Amino acid sequence: MTTSERVIETLDEAECRRLISHGGIGRIAYQSRFGQAVLPVNYQMHDGAILFRTAAHSPLDEDLRTGIADAEYRVAFEIDDFDPASRQGWSVLVQGAAHHVAPGAEREAALSARVEPWPGGERELFVRIVPARITGRRIR
Amino acid sequence: MTTSERVIETLDEAECRRLISHGGIGRIAYQSRFGQAVLPVNYQMHDGAILFRTAAHSPLDEDLRTGIADAEYRVAFEIDDFDPASRQGWSVLVQGAAHHVAPGAEREAALSARVEPWPGGERELFVRIVPARITGRRIR
Repeated sequence: MTTSERVIETLDEAECRRLISHGGIGRIAYQSRFGQAVLPVNYQMHDGAILFRTAAHSPLDEDLRTGIADAEYRVAFEIDDFDPASRQGWSVLVQGAAHHVAPGAEREAALSARVEPWPGGERELFVRIVPARITGRRIR
Repeated sequence: MTTSERVIETLDEAECRRLISHGGIGRIAYQSRFGQAVLPVNYQMHDGAILFRTAAHSPLDEDLRTGIADAEYRVAFEIDDFDPASRQGWSVLVQGAAHHVAPGAEREAALSARVEPWPGGERELFVRIVPARITGRRIR
């Protein structure tokens, strides 16, 4: 199939949620101290929200902390899966507010999601992104 | 190897440029009409800059067009390669200003980069991101 025969299909929210339900590598985009930034993290879905871990006082934490102090700190989270050989795949974009998971019941619930950061060391800070808008597309 | 034994290594700019030199799928993060956004595109490196194509009046174009009218519209571009099985891989973050490639000599040069959008249809708009800051990390 040549490039010109491929089409982009818009995915509905239910299909987007299905595609991202297994967790894995996603990319968080946000306004950092050094302008626009986007970094990969290992995430899980938990109670309909994106959940990932980072180290307290890591660059990502420092960047997010400033924004998260604002109750409506909007970030974007992107998940995709593409096959370079066939040039087919999908991407999902989650937009919403990010906040730190609070100690206590919310943290206990987050721990049960078993989201694991890949790097070693202490990564005891949980960040949660509550979707306000979920959009996606498939190319095939 | 358990998760806790893994380390994050900071990559220098030369290594980052080497890793991203072959092009492929990258993700552009930017401030859109609907807040923070991040979308995958197929890119190539050309004259030290990120180059990709989009359709005129596509959502991405409409979002970027508003910002690009500002000469200093900063975006972020992320490229990564992770192996879920071994939990190893790398990511590179390019931060810089985005602009439309102008008709004429600049466009001719961009065409020579042979950057191909995956979807079909007319995608005759070239966007160029000139790196102001390149950072990267490897996890192993």
